[in-house]
Order: sequence, then structure tokens, then C-alpha cells
Amino acid sequence: MNKVNDGGTPSHGPRERVVYSAVQLMRRGGVSGIGLRGIVAAADAPRGSLQHHFPGGKDQIVDEALGWASGFAAGKVEAYLREARPPTPSGLFAMMVDQWRDDLSRNGFERGCPLVAATADVAATNDTLRDAASRGFDTWQKSIAAGLRRMGIPRARAASLAVLMLSSLEGAIVLARAHRTVAPLNTVGREIQAILDVALPPS
Amino acid sequence: MNKVNDGGTPSHGPRERVVYSAVQLMRRGGVSGIGLRGIVAAADAPRGSLQHHFPGGKDQIVDEALGWASGFAAGKVEAYLREARPPTPSGLFAMMVDQWRDDLSRNGFERGCPLVAATADVAATNDTLRDAASRGFDTWQKSIAAGLRRMGIPRARAASLAVLMLSSLEGAIVLARAHRTVAPLNTVGREIQAILDVALPPS
Repeated sequence: MNKVNDGGTPSHGPRERVVYSAVQLMRRGGVSGIGLRGIVAAADAPRGSLQHHFPGGKDQIVDEALGWASGFAAGKVEAYLREARPPTPSGLFAMMVDQWRDDLSRNGFERGCPLVAATADVAATNDTLRDAASRGFDTWQKSIAAGLRRMGIPRARAASLAVLMLSSLEGAIVLARAHRTVAPLNTVGREIQAILDVALPPS
Repeated sequence: MNKVNDGGTPSHGPRERVVYSAVQLMRRGGVSGIGLRGIVAAADAPRGSLQHHFPGGKDQIVDEALGWASGFAAGKVEAYLREARPPTPSGLFAMMVDQWRDDLSRNGFERGCPLVAATADVAATNDTLRDAASRGFDTWQKSIAAGLRRMGIPRARAASLAVLMLSSLEGAIVLARAHRTVAPLNTVGREIQAILDVALPPS
């Protein structure tokens, strides 16, 4: 799965292409609306390969898609921590907001977060996929909290701020899609960044 | 539509029951999964009344449902402003968070916000309903911003904080549903409340 490269395009093999295509289809309209036929077509994968790679069917594909998406998001956080000179809490949130602003602008606000799409769609009806979304949010949140701790924010506050960052970003993405403007992302970025650096202990 | 009373139960007539039932069905699983048949059954309304009251079909019902839901949310904000002694920015957000905490606990995390459900589900594919969700968010947001202004927060900041409150609340509701715990609402409530009262000019 980590063969899918950073640019968000699949690199090799029908398995990776299926997972990546499922992510993109879910981002557009949730879980219910997509079928195996559509995933196979979007992935340009042989139909027979599905049974081989995904004996658990659509649920397995969606589960893996949510895992891939959260791993991708956590990977962005880790790349920021590795590359920023120096990493700061507000810089981390700015990176997250910028990435979504670019993404939404590029896709004409058609594709939101797959974790939100899956939760809104099937949390009440499919506990396996609800749990997959829960694990996905957790992966992302833990990468943020770990980063904040490494910057010097105490453990409990880092966990709390990670929830705040994730919640406000996800909500702003939904508002941005509804209004078809990145303005909510700009607003939330500005407001949350102002809180974040204050959370750093004096050096 | 304002015949639907504050407790969230329909008071009179098949028309109101249809709109209210559509809200509740959407909260569970979005727009795509519901059909006229299911709405009629949930509303205990005669099938023939649909054509009479909703010549625009499912889109009209969903549109009105989103309007009803946002009017309900804005009504809660206005009730707080009327009744709190005195209303404060943090008290307003605490009311919003409390209401959702109670609601999610009561329904076993099965029902989220219909505006989020509609946006995640059909923003990319149904511009009429995307616009209805946009208007719904706007109604709610404007009621919050107007309240903050009345408390003394300058206009531009009030608008900005309203977006922050709405985004972080909506994101936390999604996280709460995925994790099946109200913890994200508690966290966001605490973090955002700490910002809000600081936004008040010194009296």
C-alpha cells in the first residue's frame, strides 16, 4: 500500500490501484454509492483480481482505503516534522490547511475527506467500516499529537490540541465544499494558529 | 415548518411529518440512501400527500429538511441569547456542545448533523442540494455571528469566530460518531471556550 506515491497517484499493480480508486470514489460521495464494478473500472483493474486480493469484498476494500488515506495524512505530518526548520504547532496546522486548500481548489470542491464521508454515510449501519474510520482518525490524530509533543507541548495538551486541529479542519472542509470556497479553511487556519503557538512552553 | 416544535417531534400534519422524518433519515445515512417510500413510511403520511405537498419530489423534501434543521439550530442560538443571564461567547458554545452531546448519547451516535451528511453525500453530484446545505450552514452561522456581535465582539471577528465554532463543532460530531464517544466534543468545547471569552473587548 505504501507503494502509492506521495503525489497521490498509484504507482504499481492492480491491488494498489483498487485501493487508491476506492479512496477517490469515496471522497466524492461516500461508501453507499460505490460498487465493485465502479471501483474496478476506475482502477483499470481486471475484475478477477478483486476476489484474489480482496476476498472480503467491498468492506475490505473500503477498510483498506480508509487505512491508506489516514496513513497518507499521517505521512504528511511526519514529512513536515522532518523538513520544517524549525517545526512549530502553527506551522504544522498551516501545512494541513494549505494541503486541503490546494486539494479542494484543484478538484473543484468535489472531493472531501474519505474518513468524514465514510462516517457520515455508514457509521450507523456498518460497524466494521465505522471502526475503520475510527482507526483512521486515530492514526492521523496520533501523528499530530506526537509532533506537538516533540515540539515541547505537554502530553495531555498535545492530545487535546490534536483533536481540536482535526475537528476544526474537518468541519472547515465540509463548509468549504458546501459553500464552494476555501474561505472557511482560511478562517479556521488563522484562528487555530493563533491558539497553537501560545500552547508552547516558553523556551 | 415552524409548527414542528422545539422538542424535535412533529406536531401536526403530514407535511411537517415528512420534512421531520427526512431530517432524521438523512442524519443516519445521508441523502442517497433514502427514498420517497422510506420517508413516507417514517412520516406515517399518505403517499398521495407527497405529490400534493412536494411537487419537486425528493429534492424538494431534502431541501426543506435542510432548511428546517438549520432553522432549528439557529432557533437554539436565539433561545440562548434570550434566556442566558448574561449571554457569553463561551456560554453559547457550551450550549451548542451540550445539545449535541445529549443528542448523540441519546441516539447511540447513530444520527449526526444533516447538513454534514448532505454535503458529504451529494455536494459533488447535486448542485441544488449542495446549495441547500450551503444556505443551511449560512443560516446557522449568521445566528451565531449576530449573537457574538450583540455580546460586543466586533463584526469581522464575530464572523470569523462563528466559522470556527461551527467547523470545530461539526468536526467533533464526526469524530464522536466514528469513535462512539462524546470525548471529542468535550475536548473541542474546552479548547474553543478558552478562546471565546478572550475575544470579548474589556468592559
